[in-house]
Amino acid sequence: MFSPSIDSRPAPALRTSCWFNTDEVLSLDSFKGRVVVLIAFQMLCPGCVAKSIPLALRLEQLFERSELAILGLHTVFEHHHVMTPDALEVFLAEYRIRFPVGVDLPDPAGADIPLTMQAYGMRGTPTLVLIDAEGRRRAQYFGAHDELALGAEIGALLAERDGAEGCTEGQCRIPA
Amino acid sequence: MFSPSIDSRPAPALRTSCWFNTDEVLSLDSFKGRVVVLIAFQMLCPGCVAKSIPLALRLEQLFERSELAILGLHTVFEHHHVMTPDALEVFLAEYRIRFPVGVDLPDPAGADIPLTMQAYGMRGTPTLVLIDAEGRRRAQYFGAHDELALGAEIGALLAERDGAEGCTEGQCRIPA
Amino acid sequence: MFSPSIDSRPAPALRTSCWFNTDEVLSLDSFKGRVVVLIAFQMLCPGCVAKSIPLALRLEQLFERSELAILGLHTVFEHHHVMTPDALEVFLAEYRIRFPVGVDLPDPAGADIPLTMQAYGMRGTPTLVLIDAEGRRRAQYFGAHDELALGAEIGALLAERDGAEGCTEGQCRIPA
Amino acid sequence: MFSPSIDSRPAPALRTSCWFNTDEVLSLDSFKGRVVVLIAFQMLCPGCVAKSIPLALRLEQLFERSELAILGLHTVFEHHHVMTPDALEVFLAEYRIRFPVGVDLPDPAGADIPLTMQAYGMRGTPTLVLIDAEGRRRAQYFGAHDELALGAEIGALLAERDGAEGCTEGQCRIPA
Repeated sequence: MFSPSIDSRPAPALRTSCWFNTDEVLSLDSFKGRVVVLIAFQMLCPGCVAKSIPLALRLEQLFERSELAILGLHTVFEHHHVMTPDALEVFLAEYRIRFPVGVDLPDPAGADIPLTMQAYGMRGTPTLVLIDAEGRRRAQYFGAHDELALGAEIGALLAERDGAEGCTEGQCRIPA
Repeated sequence: MFSPSIDSRPAPALRTSCWFNTDEVLSLDSFKGRVVVLIAFQMLCPGCVAKSIPLALRLEQLFERSELAILGLHTVFEHHHVMTPDALEVFLAEYRIRFPVGVDLPDPAGADIPLTMQAYGMRGTPTLVLIDAEGRRRAQYFGAHDELALGAEIGALLAERDGAEGCTEGQCRIPA
Repeated sequence: MFSPSIDSRPAPALRTSCWFNTDEVLSLDSFKGRVVVLIAFQMLCPGCVAKSIPLALRLEQLFERSELAILGLHTVFEHHHVMTPDALEVFLAEYRIRFPVGVDLPDPAGADIPLTMQAYGMRGTPTLVLIDAEGRRRAQYFGAHDELALGAEIGALLAERDGAEGCTEGQCRIPA
Repeated sequence: MFSPSIDSRPAPALRTSCWFNTDEVLSLDSFKGRVVVLIAFQMLCPGCVAKSIPLALRLEQLFERSELAILGLHTVFEHHHVMTPDALEVFLAEYRIRFPVGVDLPDPAGADIPLTMQAYGMRGTPTLVLIDAEGRRRAQYFGAHDELALGAEIGALLAERDGAEGCTEGQCRIPA
């Protein structure tokens, strides 16, 4: 499950043209101290709709917002004329998505691939990125990802965040 | 996901009449330093067959044996005359179960519930117990358990085992 | 499974503004002699995407086109500004839908519900309509529908189409 | 879906040592006029437990007993010492199986394969046999079988049983 190409530098900044489900322009800095699951998707990508969106909704139910943040990123790299922010807004409402979703910034040089997607070197959609509480990109997956494995990775990052030892003075807890 | 009734004492000892898939009489002491998933089941329990056994097989594929040990425990508390060790042996072969499975020791006083099942206060089958690398029982679940949640708990226990900080000198890994 | 409100009159005509995956303007008359499964959907309806589209694709694989015709109908009754024919064209390509799909005709009087949807009295999307080889509407379901039950209904309509007796002179076949 | 090797002779007789969930010794003759789904299984066969038993239970829910009969046949061809009638009785209770289940007659000549299994030429378990209302074997499948396809075959046999035309005097019904 370990992604060898991932290093310890800060995750690339999110560059966005607009956000839904939040009044702010979000940046990863606002999430320091929390583990972040970043879901890059396109609203008309079948794999995103069948796998990533349901996964994101379940993560949202399962973990405390103060521990784990779920962020969507609409990384449109094809069919830009129909996957507009207007269409995305309807999509988010229909799929009852309430976590913040940013629209990846179109390349001013005219390339199909938007800027954040370029910076992360994403190979397509869906892509899932795990960012630790220190803001470092710790794993990045293209395509569907096993839930048991993903759970273990998130649990490990949450345990790191909480510090080493889960048992003190006769009381134990599992961090996740 | 936190089980408030679980305390920090060592997990109760396994009391067994025989073992399959190992030549030894196993005890939890042999697993110190590893996280243990203990799966208590009955071979004719539909929920065990549909959920716990497939889960155990996937855990076995996903994690290194040196980090996570999977142990089965055949806790027969009904229909003892047909869920015999002979029948269990065929069951394990048919379901291609290769991890160690112990047979919970029948109560010499004649109670239906075998001794380890009594000691753990299990309410039925399937029951899943998480034991940390220090030998403490950290969680116990009766019935089916969400894979994402279970993954997170295992990941957290693995991270604890590996020590706090997953990033050192410019290299990071996710413990799980 | 029997739909008591369905009578023996011909199914209402399809009224459409355009078609995809065909060069013709299709009408139900062209399908006389074949059983028809009509799938009414909206491209941003989660239930349609999760259930109806995969079902339609499996029906297409399973049955001969000469026996069973699959028709899609894009019945947009909300968010008309983003579920345009342009967007539908991308959706059909992304989901690899190759059976004919018509766009239900917008109501010239300005009602949200398009004309075919009105004529069939559909309550929402997805809706599945079964039309027999004589062109009669035999069943109509709103929402997800059990595959075993749907299979049985289709098999019965195919058997009707093929005539009563599946065994002649020492040889039998199952019509479906 | 058509099984070319199936001919129009009556299905081989069921030869059984005992029955569960009925007080009678059942034969296929008792089911003339009804379509029969015969499920051959072994209680410790993983594919049977995961696929055939749930399928049989759903068929039982979906169809009227007066139209479609579900019969189980315990065709033990290995591990005879643990898949005994006593063990089967517990299995049927645990899995809440209420349709009649016969135990295939062991071969008096000592072969592993019991007599009905031999007569049907079954290749293993699970095997599903479709028998029409005239008592003819119309299809036989080894292994898991697609629900939509199976539904269509059952629907066709039910329509045959009910006679050709499902619409009379302005009223239509789907036979299944």
